[in-house]
Amino acid sequence: MGFLIGIDIGGTNVVCGLTDAAGKLLHKLKQPTEALMGSSHVFDKIKLMVEELLRIAGLGREDISAIGVGTPGFIDPIQGITLFAGNLQWVQVPTAEEIRKRTGIPTYIDNDVRMYVYGEAVCGAAKGYEHVLGITIGTGLAAAVINQGKLYYGGGFMAGELGHIVMPDIPYVCGCGLQGCLETAVSATGIARQATELLQRGRSSILRDWLDGAHEDKLTAAEVSKAYDEGDSLAIEVMNHTGRLLGRGLANAVTLYSPDVIVIGGGVALAGERLFAPMREQLQKSVYRGYWDRLSIVTATMIDDAGIVGSAMSASNRLDV
Amino acid sequence: MGFLIGIDIGGTNVVCGLTDAAGKLLHKLKQPTEALMGSSHVFDKIKLMVEELLRIAGLGREDISAIGVGTPGFIDPIQGITLFAGNLQWVQVPTAEEIRKRTGIPTYIDNDVRMYVYGEAVCGAAKGYEHVLGITIGTGLAAAVINQGKLYYGGGFMAGELGHIVMPDIPYVCGCGLQGCLETAVSATGIARQATELLQRGRSSILRDWLDGAHEDKLTAAEVSKAYDEGDSLAIEVMNHTGRLLGRGLANAVTLYSPDVIVIGGGVALAGERLFAPMREQLQKSVYRGYWDRLSIVTATMIDDAGIVGSAMSASNRLDV
Repeated sequence: MGFLIGIDIGGTNVVCGLTDAAGKLLHKLKQPTEALMGSSHVFDKIKLMVEELLRIAGLGREDISAIGVGTPGFIDPIQGITLFAGNLQWVQVPTAEEIRKRTGIPTYIDNDVRMYVYGEAVCGAAKGYEHVLGITIGTGLAAAVINQGKLYYGGGFMAGELGHIVMPDIPYVCGCGLQGCLETAVSATGIARQATELLQRGRSSILRDWLDGAHEDKLTAAEVSKAYDEGDSLAIEVMNHTGRLLGRGLANAVTLYSPDVIVIGGGVALAGERLFAPMREQLQKSVYRGYWDRLSIVTATMIDDAGIVGSAMSASNRLDV
Repeated sequence: MGFLIGIDIGGTNVVCGLTDAAGKLLHKLKQPTEALMGSSHVFDKIKLMVEELLRIAGLGREDISAIGVGTPGFIDPIQGITLFAGNLQWVQVPTAEEIRKRTGIPTYIDNDVRMYVYGEAVCGAAKGYEHVLGITIGTGLAAAVINQGKLYYGGGFMAGELGHIVMPDIPYVCGCGLQGCLETAVSATGIARQATELLQRGRSSILRDWLDGAHEDKLTAAEVSKAYDEGDSLAIEVMNHTGRLLGRGLANAVTLYSPDVIVIGGGVALAGERLFAPMREQLQKSVYRGYWDRLSIVTATMIDDAGIVGSAMSASNRLDV
């Protein structure tokens, strides 16, 4: 087996990594995506990054078995098309073909969260488990599932939208058009929104001092997390409520998927036990004991590298099919 | 390919069916299970039923490629063990091995609901769909999932327990130990329980006349359905509420599994549009439009035969592995 290249196309940065056949990351490069300059601009940039990786490693393109690419949004991994990626403003972009044309290397694409979770499952915190539920909590809440070692796609490759489970007691309207989607509360945006709302209702909090006269909607989830550590009751209430909502959402997912392990990543996962303690408590209360007793819950360990390693390893598997 | 035998071991009856290689049901026999007389009694009975099927069809055991068996409860389909089946009072019964010993034919077992849904997917209402969510609404609420044509098991073979999704606004305690499981309201038992509760609160209803002095907990779901047809406002309220709860539960399942089709069977499915109209309305409101637009919802068509045909076809597939 040869080497592999994994690429993560994000709204902010493109990261390209070179791995060996086992998924060990050897080199990586990062560039701003500049998605608004168009997809061709991004693909040209990727061509140069791949060439640079080969140069650094002293390899030729014939040494690379495959390129794997994760992009946000809805993907058709069979056709290799990015169907819709809001934060790249891409619609029906033939990503795999465009990169293959420019590099001469077989290229496979998939959803970035699936690739992140696949990376954690193959080389990270969920290694060794057959049934994995992976979630990332950042600006939004996303999830992917691995069943008997294989990614679960569902019809239209649309399975796993944990962030869009509707909870009747969540009052916020979601970008997807529904009211009450879990990610409107369980996300960086959602944590800030809840705190802002409580401040606007006149609740006292250290956060008001920190705002120093700025509008309440300038708050960030990181500030709420920091106020939590100061013992601020508003911040504690928001983190507890968010953790319990996550626990209820995960209870649904555990009861339907029966994972062996839940792996949690994304920026908001840095809140750690502030969020995980109420989440675990609620989850245990809301699932049949048979699930709870066999369930592990772990934090993602590969962080920035999970997506590129997952993309590389997934592409390698698809070569074998 | 030879013929197949599918067996459904239920709490009340054992049904054995002979099919051709394509799953066409040629003959079937039914006997009371008499589960309380012990598993050996049931297996001896199955031996005689299999012999009778062969005699009727003029076949020898060498003409049968495999036997497939569906049993209720938690199953280990790999080891062939019925781990726990409450309504048979079976714990750790080596069902596959016991039947194979008595018949001399390779035997595979699985959960009865999975086999029912598999039957509908291979030969029934969900034929031709790759991603199937099948539910049965009877005494309880059960589900099974088919992903890319294959049954989805999850860790511990425990995936798909839609009936045990917890809803914060369901007040009933479930047999599984949790409060608010969907099946405590969405089932024959749940429909009767809701009507009983409203009567006990003093609500007027034609159901009270029908009870003719008997205790309110003697009500059945079938009576509620009949009162619905008489325009009874209590019955209409119960069926609407049940349908909406089912819609919310299915919304979670659709968002996580992304099925192409939902196939609905079981005794309560006979309530038809009384339940399905509010269910569809709520489901459409509670899922991202991308799911709704590509989703079909159908009623099971094989009824009593889905389980035995599903068991036979599933066993046939397992021979090939």
